[in-house]
Amino acid sequence: MKVLVTGAAGFIGSHVSRRLIADGHAVTAFDQAEPTTTRAPWIRGDLRDSEAVDAAVAGNDVVCHVGAIGDVYLAAEQPMLASEVNVTGSAHVAAAAAHHGARVIYASTWEVYGPPTYEPIDEDHPCSPDHPYNITKLAGERMILSAGRLHGISVLALRLGTAYGSGLRPNSVFRLFIDRARRGDPITVQGDGSQSRQFTHASDIARAFSLACESSIGNIALNIVASEPVTIKELADTIVARYPTELTFGPGRPGDVAPALVSAERARDMLGWRAEKPFAEGLGELMDGS
Amino acid sequence: MKVLVTGAAGFIGSHVSRRLIADGHAVTAFDQAEPTTTRAPWIRGDLRDSEAVDAAVAGNDVVCHVGAIGDVYLAAEQPMLASEVNVTGSAHVAAAAAHHGARVIYASTWEVYGPPTYEPIDEDHPCSPDHPYNITKLAGERMILSAGRLHGISVLALRLGTAYGSGLRPNSVFRLFIDRARRGDPITVQGDGSQSRQFTHASDIARAFSLACESSIGNIALNIVASEPVTIKELADTIVARYPTELTFGPGRPGDVAPALVSAERARDMLGWRAEKPFAEGLGELMDGS
Repeated sequence: MKVLVTGAAGFIGSHVSRRLIADGHAVTAFDQAEPTTTRAPWIRGDLRDSEAVDAAVAGNDVVCHVGAIGDVYLAAEQPMLASEVNVTGSAHVAAAAAHHGARVIYASTWEVYGPPTYEPIDEDHPCSPDHPYNITKLAGERMILSAGRLHGISVLALRLGTAYGSGLRPNSVFRLFIDRARRGDPITVQGDGSQSRQFTHASDIARAFSLACESSIGNIALNIVASEPVTIKELADTIVARYPTELTFGPGRPGDVAPALVSAERARDMLGWRAEKPFAEGLGELMDGS
Repeated sequence: MKVLVTGAAGFIGSHVSRRLIADGHAVTAFDQAEPTTTRAPWIRGDLRDSEAVDAAVAGNDVVCHVGAIGDVYLAAEQPMLASEVNVTGSAHVAAAAAHHGARVIYASTWEVYGPPTYEPIDEDHPCSPDHPYNITKLAGERMILSAGRLHGISVLALRLGTAYGSGLRPNSVFRLFIDRARRGDPITVQGDGSQSRQFTHASDIARAFSLACESSIGNIALNIVASEPVTIKELADTIVARYPTELTFGPGRPGDVAPALVSAERARDMLGWRAEKPFAEGLGELMDGS
């Protein structure tokens, strides 16, 4: 299939692009920056530019819409930018997909749920996001899903767990911890470290996009989240055990999303997806990497 | 108090402006169009222009942020525009209010709730909007409320019932029905007419904004909805009884929001607000008007 990947130069987008190419799809990359880890043809473009998005979508069977302001700190500093890229940009993708008859796979996030009213959280759980990042990601998801209903296109939202793997942003907790530990600087856990995340490896996320491209499931959202919760302290302990550094504790970070157990059972049933990379293995590869 | 009213030339904005002036506030109007029914100083500006919004908010104690793409049909045709004005524009208002220390009263809508999971719907009911209009209105509300949490400003969202009163848009069901009936053309109810709305008079809505300006209640949303549900058929029957016309029934309109009973009990308790205009009286005034 011909697949356009938005945000293809980014962390998740590059994993998705490589996986789709490996699975035999003809991938085109859409990004402001040139992808450095894939050989896919690259269209330089901005999601805020509706004409550029429309032209890029033309001729593709599927759009994997991964491009977004995905950095929660940047979204908090520049909520207008998050709104323009994550909401209006998604509306541009939806309009272009409706125009050209393409299917859309949207990269959403488990953070759309907000505080849990029950656990594990399934896809029927209410969504109550409270931060410019998850507010705009959810609005973008809903713009895509509403275009599916209003224009009859096939759309699917994947609510991704906290992703990790090669190519992470420098301000991710993984890179911050590993980079400091390698230099022998102490690692500081914010809060008591008991908050947990179902860290989901980018290779598992990329496989979900590949399955979603092949599938005809539409007009719903599916949680794509690894089953194993890992606390920040467990993460830090594993890193500290390997490098000549120590662990310290600092004040909690305001705006941190509270932990919540998320179920990916529906993705297993409907898409045949489950996370395969054990966390210890994925973290080990990150520490082995450069 | 000094109050900036965005969208002051529009239907609800003009009612809000007049009421605030009558209550002794110094109102400044912000709109692309010149308000025709108030004498407030007017700043011509676009919510999509962050600098114009910031300059307009400066010096005001409160912003009544009413301006939006409020026409559901326009929002469906141009979801990108709805996103830019309703989400990014609200982010601009939030940033300007944080910059200048102003309080924000946001005009939200009962349509943010989506299909009811229980009735009557109170403010704790999950929000699951499914149309570019209510999706973007909810995202705008959340951007405003998140700015309250992140920047410590005082913000309040009023989730308004379906509004009616003088100055309604020509494509509102009230104006369509009355204008056709006056010409002797038959009125066509889409669907069986059993769908109900808690039509809320613009004068009651304007009073809610005035109470909200005087109040210090913050960081929550309140339903501002009249208690009396009226079906579309009841509305049409009342109009048909007065004019020499007849009632016909046509196919239902896709995308119409399903009826749901909404409670404004919390606004009564916290804001001292309740709807005062009986529907028969408000509708009679509309039919008496030009």
